[in-house]
Amino acid sequence: MPDIGALLSPTTVAVVGAASDPHILRGRIMQVMGGHPFKGRVYPVSRSSDEIMGLKAYKTVSDLPEIVDMAVLIIPAKFVPDTLEECGAMGIRAAQIITSGFAEEVDGEGGDMQQRIRDIAEKYDMAVCGPNSEGFANMGLDFCPTFSPAVDDPDTSLMPQWCNDNHIGVVAQSGGMGFAFYDRGRPKQLPFSYVITTGNEACLEGFQLVDYMLDDGNTEVIVMFIEDIKSPEIYATVAEKSLRAGKPIIVTKIGHSQAGQRAAASHTAALAGSYSAYNAMFERYGVIEGRDIEEIVDIASGFSFWGDRLPKGKRVGIITGSGGAGGWMADTAVEAGLSVPPLDAKTRAQIEALLPSYGTAQNPIDGTAGAIREVGYPNLIRMTAASDEVDAIIAIASARNASRYEPDLEPMTAVAREAEKPIFFNSYTMPKPEGFAVFGRAGFPVFTNMRNTAHVISCLADYRAFREKFLKIPSIDTVSKKPADLSEAFSQAGDTLTEYESKHILAAYGVSTPQEILANNADAAADAMAGMGGPVALKVQSPDIIHKTEAGAVALGLESGEAVRAGFDRIIDNARAYNANAAIKGVLVQPMAPPGREIILGINRDEAFGPMLMIGLGGVYVEVMRDVVFAPAPVGREEAKMMLDRLQGVALLHGVRGEPPADIDALIDLMVTVSCIADDWRDDIAEIDLNPVLVHPKGEGLTIVDALVVKTKQV
Amino acid sequence: MPDIGALLSPTTVAVVGAASDPHILRGRIMQVMGGHPFKGRVYPVSRSSDEIMGLKAYKTVSDLPEIVDMAVLIIPAKFVPDTLEECGAMGIRAAQIITSGFAEEVDGEGGDMQQRIRDIAEKYDMAVCGPNSEGFANMGLDFCPTFSPAVDDPDTSLMPQWCNDNHIGVVAQSGGMGFAFYDRGRPKQLPFSYVITTGNEACLEGFQLVDYMLDDGNTEVIVMFIEDIKSPEIYATVAEKSLRAGKPIIVTKIGHSQAGQRAAASHTAALAGSYSAYNAMFERYGVIEGRDIEEIVDIASGFSFWGDRLPKGKRVGIITGSGGAGGWMADTAVEAGLSVPPLDAKTRAQIEALLPSYGTAQNPIDGTAGAIREVGYPNLIRMTAASDEVDAIIAIASARNASRYEPDLEPMTAVAREAEKPIFFNSYTMPKPEGFAVFGRAGFPVFTNMRNTAHVISCLADYRAFREKFLKIPSIDTVSKKPADLSEAFSQAGDTLTEYESKHILAAYGVSTPQEILANNADAAADAMAGMGGPVALKVQSPDIIHKTEAGAVALGLESGEAVRAGFDRIIDNARAYNANAAIKGVLVQPMAPPGREIILGINRDEAFGPMLMIGLGGVYVEVMRDVVFAPAPVGREEAKMMLDRLQGVALLHGVRGEPPADIDALIDLMVTVSCIADDWRDDIAEIDLNPVLVHPKGEGLTIVDALVVKTKQV
Repeated sequence: MPDIGALLSPTTVAVVGAASDPHILRGRIMQVMGGHPFKGRVYPVSRSSDEIMGLKAYKTVSDLPEIVDMAVLIIPAKFVPDTLEECGAMGIRAAQIITSGFAEEVDGEGGDMQQRIRDIAEKYDMAVCGPNSEGFANMGLDFCPTFSPAVDDPDTSLMPQWCNDNHIGVVAQSGGMGFAFYDRGRPKQLPFSYVITTGNEACLEGFQLVDYMLDDGNTEVIVMFIEDIKSPEIYATVAEKSLRAGKPIIVTKIGHSQAGQRAAASHTAALAGSYSAYNAMFERYGVIEGRDIEEIVDIASGFSFWGDRLPKGKRVGIITGSGGAGGWMADTAVEAGLSVPPLDAKTRAQIEALLPSYGTAQNPIDGTAGAIREVGYPNLIRMTAASDEVDAIIAIASARNASRYEPDLEPMTAVAREAEKPIFFNSYTMPKPEGFAVFGRAGFPVFTNMRNTAHVISCLADYRAFREKFLKIPSIDTVSKKPADLSEAFSQAGDTLTEYESKHILAAYGVSTPQEILANNADAAADAMAGMGGPVALKVQSPDIIHKTEAGAVALGLESGEAVRAGFDRIIDNARAYNANAAIKGVLVQPMAPPGREIILGINRDEAFGPMLMIGLGGVYVEVMRDVVFAPAPVGREEAKMMLDRLQGVALLHGVRGEPPADIDALIDLMVTVSCIADDWRDDIAEIDLNPVLVHPKGEGLTIVDALVVKTKQV
Repeated sequence: MPDIGALLSPTTVAVVGAASDPHILRGRIMQVMGGHPFKGRVYPVSRSSDEIMGLKAYKTVSDLPEIVDMAVLIIPAKFVPDTLEECGAMGIRAAQIITSGFAEEVDGEGGDMQQRIRDIAEKYDMAVCGPNSEGFANMGLDFCPTFSPAVDDPDTSLMPQWCNDNHIGVVAQSGGMGFAFYDRGRPKQLPFSYVITTGNEACLEGFQLVDYMLDDGNTEVIVMFIEDIKSPEIYATVAEKSLRAGKPIIVTKIGHSQAGQRAAASHTAALAGSYSAYNAMFERYGVIEGRDIEEIVDIASGFSFWGDRLPKGKRVGIITGSGGAGGWMADTAVEAGLSVPPLDAKTRAQIEALLPSYGTAQNPIDGTAGAIREVGYPNLIRMTAASDEVDAIIAIASARNASRYEPDLEPMTAVAREAEKPIFFNSYTMPKPEGFAVFGRAGFPVFTNMRNTAHVISCLADYRAFREKFLKIPSIDTVSKKPADLSEAFSQAGDTLTEYESKHILAAYGVSTPQEILANNADAAADAMAGMGGPVALKVQSPDIIHKTEAGAVALGLESGEAVRAGFDRIIDNARAYNANAAIKGVLVQPMAPPGREIILGINRDEAFGPMLMIGLGGVYVEVMRDVVFAPAPVGREEAKMMLDRLQGVALLHGVRGEPPADIDALIDLMVTVSCIADDWRDDIAEIDLNPVLVHPKGEGLTIVDALVVKTKQV
């Protein structure tokens, strides 16, 4: 295992390529490092200078007076592999490669050179971060081998003087974005442990660094900027570990859009992959997705201050001195999925006794500016938080002139310390850094964006609820039930299995499929209908005709032998007209399905993360709205239930407008089974489509109306 | 007409209730006013002091040495009416009432006193703002009769030294919120003309102040915080005037949620009313709704800088020095409804010739930090903006140290001046006020929030498109066609008209309704069926049974005389069982409707704004998703079309998955007609429900399956 500690917390460092001119990056990095009181020894390595910023410089790494813990490489790309080799051979255990011009180059030898870096790192078991990176900062050690302007002010300590102990660690593929989180958070007096920018991730990947942070005891909240995940297994292991530890990961993953994917590919040679698969992987482990820098910093702040007392629900009490801000916050809270219930009568009477006649404690609790001053936030917060009707408190303030709040510092600190429910300040005026410090010292985060305030509370409550559920779920029971005799049938089928063949697989896994008969001529079809004793559907079976309805290869609701015979001939003719070369394997005769809620269910194989179970409500409108969710296969019953809850239209399954609730248990069974099939055959099955599935009323099961399995293309 | 100019731009001012102690509001207001170089004469009026902050004080208004233009009243509520009367009698033309304790009081005499204020203002034709207000600021005159801490810093000029000429005027019912917009915008060097906080609006209403701003030539963009609109006519007139003038109004209206409505009621005694009606009124006149302080300030900034060159579409070119930020911005843009198309080959080649090998001009145009420095934003912006593929430019920068950009100031200014497409800077680090000034001087807004950046561009493009459409629409043609003979039938019907009676009204307005016969016995129903020659539906007609299906009072698809007779008896029995006292007016016999897209269409009468046309896609799923939109009746064909475009599921009407497009023309006709009916009978009809309406394929019309009209309750 490479020694990440040697990389991040060295006592001796070489800066290879160091320069004296602070206007070039090689000089800036020395200047930035020199601006903070790092206690280790720093050795510049330069071919052209003997002294750099007051430090003796060495011609090569081999000339150094000791074997350093780590080397920073900021030299032209073509020299990087040999220099790294030199470092490794000497016994240097870690390197931070700043240089660009590797796999992100459109053409040229960048890709090959990156592979060489990777080989060297493996050979010497070195912890190598980069290349094409902006370096990192270890706030605790005041060590920042980076040229980022976010840490170039020697008058601003990397760690604020007043902050809480729950540090935020940042890992970002983009240097600009990694340090941007710090740039936003530092004026809010938030404590960061590390900002690490990983660039192309030729060797160390983001989640390996997160793994290190989870263990080193210095980081409670993790923020990430992700362009791609190179090793899904590392991701899954680390994400689960962080969830079990209660150390939340807040990410943004670029590449939702085609333009974003183009950008990631050209930026750090990332293959952004399908965003829906990433989203599913995040959902699986409670990883929180943020939408912009400020929002992510605010979510991290919420966890940093209240991670040990996350809200048990989404009911908030709002305390305000500005009636306008209170109303706006209430609307914003409700739109973010919180509720703002009236307080219980007792709490309300207690508070209103202290307010002027035009104040109100109904919730929002509008103390009016004057009353807030007289009664004080600490009293109002304490009384409101005591109500059983709320899970969290939002206190609205104008924190522009924070000196106004200093007299309250002591009782506010007591409130924060004793609180059983989290309390968040929202300021509608912009505080200065000193203002954030006043509140931070007392133990409160301050947000300046109403939507973020509400969203943070929602995220914290969701995280708590998800984690509690997750910890109770036994690890997914996925004992393979791959029926032995199925393998032969599967291998004999073509690239695309017909409905009949596909259902054969489902049936082998115990999924009950409608009574159905494969007929090879019109008379056999008519006999089948007679046996079924009711209206039937006929469907041409051909691996070459996937869209049967479009081809006119389906006939519905046939009730007489005559109708069945005519239908048989018609759909065979249609199928031949649609595709003259189609191999026709017969016509499937099925009883017409009873009515039910239309569902689409399927498997798509993601290149990085393997098979993904997809479920959505069916029908034309739903297709327009794209109400579908994904999860990595296999899924257990609990995960399947959670997937259904993520559907916008989930209420339909529970029965609306007098309709009976659908057989959700049967649907969950099917989801679990299909996901197990996909898992059993993960290298063989590229796609499963059950569309539509009709879910009948509770207790009456479901009908798989059509089914399709597509094999993985053999390379 | 009250003289709003005397209120906002006086040369002589009395401050009634002024005090010397800056720790109380009566002293703060003097201190704040004294901190800015207002050139008019200020007279303190105080019962207890002879001199206040160096100014001679007078015992009463009558003692003043001259008749002032306006008086600021900050005295106990009980003294306000008499003092206002004194002012009016003397000939003072305007007053700003700061004092609280009027209609917003839960009990007591506040409401009566507020009515007295209103009466006095009318009697003397005075321009009275407030009460329960935080005062206002006129930035151009350095006049700020307010105690708001947002303007209490004498070292910060109200108007930035460097700013553009398109000033932002703020009108807010909440003092805290009104000045909060300024508090956010001032550090961004945005120019404000006024911040006016109106509190309870006993006399002057927000839109009257907006009307003044539209005329006085000093304001190009308006920002409002609204708790309620007291006079819908004033709103409609002023909102249309602002749209025609191209001076956008950006609002937030609180009361979306019940909690928000409670807050508004207690705060300024506002009756928040139905939010959907407000939303419809905003949509009608292109009024833009903002969701938080920062977003509103950013939208206002966008208009302030680029109001004369709004984007013609939603295609953006993104220029970045940080690949990570570029990708993230691209994703964010696409999620906000913008597109980020690849540039044309020619532009791309031109740009790539200037970039290093690891840069790209595909869009996002990732110059890399180094290339941005060498090539410069001005060149990259100019080349990108020349492409026919984009309508606007987002330039991503790290503007933390704005001095880096000063050398580019001259070419950047030239680019902004000559640009035909708007250009927006996004900084991923936080600029200082000087940084905003550098970009502002050059002519560019700087945003620090990616979602806001994208959303602002979308708002600007939408506003342009909407305004162009609006200016072309002839004023709605709503010549009443109220048929004379209908009045009698209408007055004879009960409070709730049956389907048969309701359709009679529709038919009188030329809406073709299905062939249908009202049968009073089973035989008549069977005869009717025979005449129709196909399957029919039977529906019990009773004003006392509104939910016919729920009552079992409907039978569908009856094809034989026998089935009709049996059905008739069954649904009559069901109806009687459902409501033994229901007056039954017969059974309606209708042919079964051919299939079509299910729509719900109706009228709801809003207490403030009158009849609202509602349209939505029908069906169970849509009910769950609440995909409905509203517009004030009457609507013309253009407005009806725009309403349909606002439906999330509008694609369904255009035909998806091989289904034919629906008869949108017929639907639009129906929308216009129903809205005209509602307008003709605006005092008489409380509700119209056409649910469902089946819209058949293009050219085949529609079927109104059920109809219901409810009369307004006579008081």
